[in-house]
Amino acid sequence: MNQLSLPRHQRPSTFDQFLFGACYYPEHWDRSWIETDAALMAQAHVNVVRMAEFAWTLMEPRRGAFDFSLFKAAVQALKAQGIDTILCTPTATPPRWLTRDHPEWMRVDRNGVPFSHGTRQHCCTNHPEFRAESRRITRAMAEAFKDDAAVIGWQTDNEFYCHVDECYCESCQIAFRDWLRARYNQSVKELNHAWGTLFWSQQYDDFTEIEIPKKWRQPAPCNPSALLDYRRFLSDSITSFQREQVEILREVNPSWWITHNGVFYNIDYYTFAEDLDFLSVDVYPAFWGTKPECFIGASQLNERCRQATGTFLVPEQCGGPGGQLDFLQPTPEPGRMRLWAYQSIAHGADGMLHFRWRTCRYGAELHWHGILDHDNVPRRRFEEFTQEGAELKRIGSEILGTTKRVDVGISFGYEQDHAHAVMNFSRPQPDAQRELILAELMRRKIAVGYVNEADSYAGLKVLIVPSAIILDAVRAKKIEAFVAAGGVLLVTATTGQRDVNNHAIEQTLPGLLSEVLGITVEGFGKTEHRKMCLKGAGLELPADYYEIIKCVTAEPLAHWRFEANPGSEAAEGTVGLSCNVFGKGKAFYLGSFMNASSASVLLQMLCEQSGLETLGVADFNVCIIERRAEDRRLTFVLNNYPEMKLVEGLPLGRELITEKYCDGSLTVPAFGVAIVRS
Amino acid sequence: MNQLSLPRHQRPSTFDQFLFGACYYPEHWDRSWIETDAALMAQAHVNVVRMAEFAWTLMEPRRGAFDFSLFKAAVQALKAQGIDTILCTPTATPPRWLTRDHPEWMRVDRNGVPFSHGTRQHCCTNHPEFRAESRRITRAMAEAFKDDAAVIGWQTDNEFYCHVDECYCESCQIAFRDWLRARYNQSVKELNHAWGTLFWSQQYDDFTEIEIPKKWRQPAPCNPSALLDYRRFLSDSITSFQREQVEILREVNPSWWITHNGVFYNIDYYTFAEDLDFLSVDVYPAFWGTKPECFIGASQLNERCRQATGTFLVPEQCGGPGGQLDFLQPTPEPGRMRLWAYQSIAHGADGMLHFRWRTCRYGAELHWHGILDHDNVPRRRFEEFTQEGAELKRIGSEILGTTKRVDVGISFGYEQDHAHAVMNFSRPQPDAQRELILAELMRRKIAVGYVNEADSYAGLKVLIVPSAIILDAVRAKKIEAFVAAGGVLLVTATTGQRDVNNHAIEQTLPGLLSEVLGITVEGFGKTEHRKMCLKGAGLELPADYYEIIKCVTAEPLAHWRFEANPGSEAAEGTVGLSCNVFGKGKAFYLGSFMNASSASVLLQMLCEQSGLETLGVADFNVCIIERRAEDRRLTFVLNNYPEMKLVEGLPLGRELITEKYCDGSLTVPAFGVAIVRS
Amino acid sequence: MNQLSLPRHQRPSTFDQFLFGACYYPEHWDRSWIETDAALMAQAHVNVVRMAEFAWTLMEPRRGAFDFSLFKAAVQALKAQGIDTILCTPTATPPRWLTRDHPEWMRVDRNGVPFSHGTRQHCCTNHPEFRAESRRITRAMAEAFKDDAAVIGWQTDNEFYCHVDECYCESCQIAFRDWLRARYNQSVKELNHAWGTLFWSQQYDDFTEIEIPKKWRQPAPCNPSALLDYRRFLSDSITSFQREQVEILREVNPSWWITHNGVFYNIDYYTFAEDLDFLSVDVYPAFWGTKPECFIGASQLNERCRQATGTFLVPEQCGGPGGQLDFLQPTPEPGRMRLWAYQSIAHGADGMLHFRWRTCRYGAELHWHGILDHDNVPRRRFEEFTQEGAELKRIGSEILGTTKRVDVGISFGYEQDHAHAVMNFSRPQPDAQRELILAELMRRKIAVGYVNEADSYAGLKVLIVPSAIILDAVRAKKIEAFVAAGGVLLVTATTGQRDVNNHAIEQTLPGLLSEVLGITVEGFGKTEHRKMCLKGAGLELPADYYEIIKCVTAEPLAHWRFEANPGSEAAEGTVGLSCNVFGKGKAFYLGSFMNASSASVLLQMLCEQSGLETLGVADFNVCIIERRAEDRRLTFVLNNYPEMKLVEGLPLGRELITEKYCDGSLTVPAFGVAIVRS
Repeated sequence: MNQLSLPRHQRPSTFDQFLFGACYYPEHWDRSWIETDAALMAQAHVNVVRMAEFAWTLMEPRRGAFDFSLFKAAVQALKAQGIDTILCTPTATPPRWLTRDHPEWMRVDRNGVPFSHGTRQHCCTNHPEFRAESRRITRAMAEAFKDDAAVIGWQTDNEFYCHVDECYCESCQIAFRDWLRARYNQSVKELNHAWGTLFWSQQYDDFTEIEIPKKWRQPAPCNPSALLDYRRFLSDSITSFQREQVEILREVNPSWWITHNGVFYNIDYYTFAEDLDFLSVDVYPAFWGTKPECFIGASQLNERCRQATGTFLVPEQCGGPGGQLDFLQPTPEPGRMRLWAYQSIAHGADGMLHFRWRTCRYGAELHWHGILDHDNVPRRRFEEFTQEGAELKRIGSEILGTTKRVDVGISFGYEQDHAHAVMNFSRPQPDAQRELILAELMRRKIAVGYVNEADSYAGLKVLIVPSAIILDAVRAKKIEAFVAAGGVLLVTATTGQRDVNNHAIEQTLPGLLSEVLGITVEGFGKTEHRKMCLKGAGLELPADYYEIIKCVTAEPLAHWRFEANPGSEAAEGTVGLSCNVFGKGKAFYLGSFMNASSASVLLQMLCEQSGLETLGVADFNVCIIERRAEDRRLTFVLNNYPEMKLVEGLPLGRELITEKYCDGSLTVPAFGVAIVRS
Repeated sequence: MNQLSLPRHQRPSTFDQFLFGACYYPEHWDRSWIETDAALMAQAHVNVVRMAEFAWTLMEPRRGAFDFSLFKAAVQALKAQGIDTILCTPTATPPRWLTRDHPEWMRVDRNGVPFSHGTRQHCCTNHPEFRAESRRITRAMAEAFKDDAAVIGWQTDNEFYCHVDECYCESCQIAFRDWLRARYNQSVKELNHAWGTLFWSQQYDDFTEIEIPKKWRQPAPCNPSALLDYRRFLSDSITSFQREQVEILREVNPSWWITHNGVFYNIDYYTFAEDLDFLSVDVYPAFWGTKPECFIGASQLNERCRQATGTFLVPEQCGGPGGQLDFLQPTPEPGRMRLWAYQSIAHGADGMLHFRWRTCRYGAELHWHGILDHDNVPRRRFEEFTQEGAELKRIGSEILGTTKRVDVGISFGYEQDHAHAVMNFSRPQPDAQRELILAELMRRKIAVGYVNEADSYAGLKVLIVPSAIILDAVRAKKIEAFVAAGGVLLVTATTGQRDVNNHAIEQTLPGLLSEVLGITVEGFGKTEHRKMCLKGAGLELPADYYEIIKCVTAEPLAHWRFEANPGSEAAEGTVGLSCNVFGKGKAFYLGSFMNASSASVLLQMLCEQSGLETLGVADFNVCIIERRAEDRRLTFVLNNYPEMKLVEGLPLGRELITEKYCDGSLTVPAFGVAIVRS
Repeated sequence: MNQLSLPRHQRPSTFDQFLFGACYYPEHWDRSWIETDAALMAQAHVNVVRMAEFAWTLMEPRRGAFDFSLFKAAVQALKAQGIDTILCTPTATPPRWLTRDHPEWMRVDRNGVPFSHGTRQHCCTNHPEFRAESRRITRAMAEAFKDDAAVIGWQTDNEFYCHVDECYCESCQIAFRDWLRARYNQSVKELNHAWGTLFWSQQYDDFTEIEIPKKWRQPAPCNPSALLDYRRFLSDSITSFQREQVEILREVNPSWWITHNGVFYNIDYYTFAEDLDFLSVDVYPAFWGTKPECFIGASQLNERCRQATGTFLVPEQCGGPGGQLDFLQPTPEPGRMRLWAYQSIAHGADGMLHFRWRTCRYGAELHWHGILDHDNVPRRRFEEFTQEGAELKRIGSEILGTTKRVDVGISFGYEQDHAHAVMNFSRPQPDAQRELILAELMRRKIAVGYVNEADSYAGLKVLIVPSAIILDAVRAKKIEAFVAAGGVLLVTATTGQRDVNNHAIEQTLPGLLSEVLGITVEGFGKTEHRKMCLKGAGLELPADYYEIIKCVTAEPLAHWRFEANPGSEAAEGTVGLSCNVFGKGKAFYLGSFMNASSASVLLQMLCEQSGLETLGVADFNVCIIERRAEDRRLTFVLNNYPEMKLVEGLPLGRELITEKYCDGSLTVPAFGVAIVRS
């Protein structure tokens, strides 16, 4: 297969070894420690570290007075132990001498209050002068390390938008207007149309009259078209900030790969990743808790990265208990950190760095624990890290070249999340529905994954579109074609309700999908206190939102039923779930949102009707994920339980961790991992 | 009866037909749709629409370049179908070209942050230049439509203060100082006395030194006298803003009636309405939910309008599910919208417009549903609207001329609510007590209603004064006279505690009402965790606040009792409920606040002791309300249950909806309405 | 014993009579009332009032035009009745004429919004010009009253920082930088080291580059070293503001004593009190509720004062129900106010003033009730006040000269609270642990009290150090010496984790206490959902945080046990509680935080093992506290129950209230007090 013809979410990496290591901050310790550290890292099978993302001032203590000696020394000392380096542009933390005279470079919050020096991400990435500084330091670093073979790749900045995305400074006002000019072909009339400014007398005569809309109320609720455009601008403008760095790095040394560590909620990573070799993702699973069922938190995060990039790198994976300001996460139990690492690998990681080598003694993250403690004593976490390193050294080459198998695609779209964010009407967040579906199918050991709505559907057997409120003709046609060619489609309520301007469409719903779904939607409602249920086809799906479906060519599958005084409700007895045969495929429509109860029942039915293959048989929170290449399949078994679990129905083959033969069944220890190669 | 001699809350309308229609926005659709819309409206028996409240930019795209052609055309096309028009001044949404160069016209929040263009109500109605613009557009519109007979009346602006009332801009600072100068006769000494500035060394030497007090803390809690004056200023200043528009409209065409659509919490509508022909009220009952008992939410809203104006108009009544930004209301079940319309009519509406003709496809209210959906297909809601139109066309003339019967008046006063708002001391909100009393008496089918403390008590049998904390001699005398003439009075705790400056009075409580109530109040207390109850006269009233009553001429009715260790409480065994015979009447005092449990028991006793007549017999949430004229009584029966209900004890007469004879008992369908004319 | 050699918390007062009285505001009433008031006060045995803390404008209506006549007259009229006066500097409420032209003197909140005139504490105490005004009015008042023998002492300002402590005005930025210059010897390099600015590229080149760090996020979490320094600055700067007043007062009349009424959470009163003769504390126990167990709220408040000063004054004790803006406290039951007064006295108060003589009719505190009501009628509260006055007149001389007995010291440290406040990591607040320990030991009738970590441990049998996160060598040595000399020590988790810069130490924990505790801490963790318990030595202590202890010389006492799948947890079976014999003493370490369940069990064990004497036997919420001098012991018995209680195990002697002999057992009435002199 040619890589460019692959769906984006199936794109393999080009690493020549599986990367393993840690984030390293030589600047926090005495220089004399570097060599000891490097030796201890080598002992733990580290082959790569990431450095320098917050060290601008150290590298340029006064304007133009660059001093890369510390990192030069570190790169060399590490290389002497066989360890490569990923460098980072340090633009998240500009020096104080640089911002001191430029208060106007600071981001401004929605109350007009500027941020100050002392943390990170406080400078506005849309300020042209700050952008010039960003290019200047990027070029200086790139030139300094361009001949250093131990530097294999770069990370741009650090976790864009993890703390803050909005900014209301004057530069942003100007940048937003310029962005609008480009989007609307310099025509304010086009903008007036796209924003529906006839409502509430909002018409603009000139782009200069426009201000960034503040989410929520100013004093009444804001224009949802303007708000969506602002979210698009947020994504496009940070992409453009990054692109300036990428272009310099590529120019200086084209052999470097370039990545960025996401993923957060305010960037369209599918587009953003086009400038990168691949996207990366920082994964701290303890944010979602440590109960067995909590694995889904990290899984959806890995999937949000994978849908944008295919295989990927994890530059930061939990290295111990994490704490900051007002929280402290549970300490990972023995085996947990390694289990979490393999979870990302199963989803598609081809590199795994833990954050961080040693816990820093000061600063806002002084309880964000690394592999070594404040006292530099190697303890349990170092042992576990070493075990992981040894394993990956041994089996990494088997992993490289494989990508995650996906039979069921869950449609992912940046605009869907933001159409929700700017005007949610108490609908459940699209991402919450995606996560619910992912969880239910992973529990059933189905090969499921997120697929961007802009990506190819090649290879999918089933496509699930949860409340994709914004739909255009191109995407609608692609969905139709998928079904016509034999695919199974499941669409949930409100899909297709808006056009690209975030306006309600003028056609009867589901609009562009009416034909493939074979229905019209004749009404909807939210129940407040009355119990309501969708019944039929052996199903019983509780819901608190209904759409009234009129079947045109579809078959009704289930009808709305109310508990008491059903006669008083318009929806009583109307159709709520339908199935349409279209071409060689089938298209289901659920006239409601997926909730925990309905997802379980409905997806069970879908699995059965679609004849989906399971990857194995085990308790709910044992994850089974397959990565494959043309010549092999790797079946990852991840036991999220604090007790041993039996897993059956696995392929026959060699189990890579134990190097024993697997006859289709295995017992996996508490928080244990197995990988069957077949 | 002469209208001027009537109590304000009994004032009938002067409409010559019952108004029925919708809010119409021709500017949101292609001009070609107007005629089709008008024809479909006529089919639904519409006789009036409201237009243009948010269309300033469309009517004046550039300064002075007025273009009323769209609305002219709409007025004519509608009139051709027999439909009149209510026009609105469009001052809630000034054009961007007008504010662009005047950032200083924007309202400023308490953090000093100005609002921006893009929603509504963002301009400061106290800015003299913005006021000049308001007069300019009002005059231009008035002149444009002055000879258009189809225009029957005007609505000023739209829902003053629905999103925001406070403003801290420089114009407001100046206006507030001017208002204070007028109130205190240019004497800062008077102000110092009225505000009690000796406390915390607040004395002012000049009005220019005064700033608007910010509610809550700056950093300690603010002066309650200053805060109350600011609430008075908020009401007076918006009244004055409106008056400027009213004067122009009256001058241009004295035959127009003028109204405004309230009601919100920050305007003294009783005073505000004096400039209008009548006050109107926008009613969206779904804000209070759809359980049977939720009817009281809309009832109290209707009453808040009625107390200020008598009969009234509803310019906006729910036209479907309503949603905005972060909420979506339940979809009204079949019959609900019509039931809600009749609920307002029973309370005194002589006109009923639904919001809105067709759901707009864009803007912040794109899910605020109208009679027609986004796809312009008439469905269930259109049928229901048409039914309502047909009925009102047939029976409207019976309704016109009648006003709501009120045997029991619940005292209403703007200052009481705001004395509470600025310093609540954890007391229950006066409006919450009013609503509780209204609910209990409506459940008992008593003719009950809100009566302003400035209004006449003529016609009342019982007057209930819930925690009217501010009392002056005029109002105290009026209450005395009411009782002396045979009325029954019930007063609850803290009434009379403050003077007009919001100072505690120096007399022993209840101060000015001591004689009519025949008591003094010797102490009070809030219980925190100990159960407490008022016992006696066969009553048992739980409470968490007590006053210790000393009976002077009154009889004790019930005493305070504590559950455990009563001896440790000062109130144990003291009087908490008293009754005084005064003149021909009786005056009860409850030394506590009305709560859900006590209201039920106490008002049951009051009904019995006052020999109040019930309007019928039915389950709690079937409302029975009487409107009457000298020659007829209309008994409205409103079934808020989702099932059929039997109603008895009704008057004999013709039921207007079914046109059948009513022998005193009826069955009313789920969400159904009956109107017995007797 | 020489007073200077006494531990600070044991320092007796130098009053020549027990002070009893009220806060008096003659400015709120007609001048003619002063004489009547004074006579009534005398009747209630008042011997002192506090005056003038909010009367600046009255005393200086125009710049330099001083008018002290009202207070002169009041002081004289009161003295004529035998009543002395405490005067206050009025700097919490500067006149409007003074601030009018100086908006830059106002405190500024973290959003950059300045406060305004109309409440109190709105002026920035770090503004040099406002400080000049503070000195000016202090000197003017002092000079005016310097020869007035009836003025016995002064209170500086009023309740510093009770409403607000932070300020971001330009003066504060400058003052903070100056403070940092002094702390770091003019060396920004020292500051960079102390703040760990290598983290996130924060390095400063000059003190002028520094801005006050805003707590929480700007946009990421702030530097914890900078935040702690800002909290130190807050305390030091208000201390310096006060010192300017103190120096003037001492200069003008050295015979005056000087105090201030705390205590709040943002001042290191131990240091702050060094400029005063003694610290005072305002006590409103109803803030903590009125259930019997709520006494602990006021007890910990009294202790927070006592640890800083020894015996003290209560300038404001509840005079009735208190209410402000949005709350109203429960009305004290008969006897409560007196009980609360004696509670403070038992803790060490040698003077007791109630707030306030008469309830003010206006202002933000118009429902903060005094001894007399708005109507000036003496009622129940006046009777109770008079009883208290009579008793204290009779027994006051017995109390004077005694100080509270403390066998068990609970370590108190300002920096511990603020190390927590600026970075809490979800640990329980140190003060919450202190209060828990205080409560458990008071319930067991142990002589327990707070002892500052800077104070002497002389006289203590047991020292409890709850999570003293910051520790230096001096304090560690003092703790070691205490144990070596035979003391019993109990230390809880995280103690010693940080150095004075708020950096994690580089040694293995517990660092400086490792030797005395005989352990190292090898790991820690928070449990999220798994039940965990410390078992051993007959104890069973539930916890949600564990430290893994390695016993070096200590004996293990209890081990960590998990409920299900224990094998999956690293802590399972490790030591969580240890005891080390060190010199003549014993040192316990709890590898967790004290919680309600564990405190009860663990402290019971500690009492038993330490052979602590109990002061009596009674139900939990009967407090027994001993004050003593060399020649006598006063055993205070305070019944917080609303019913009579039997108390046994008391010393033999005379009961001072009833003047009856106590044979070791007593019955104390509901809310009653007994004091046995032995």
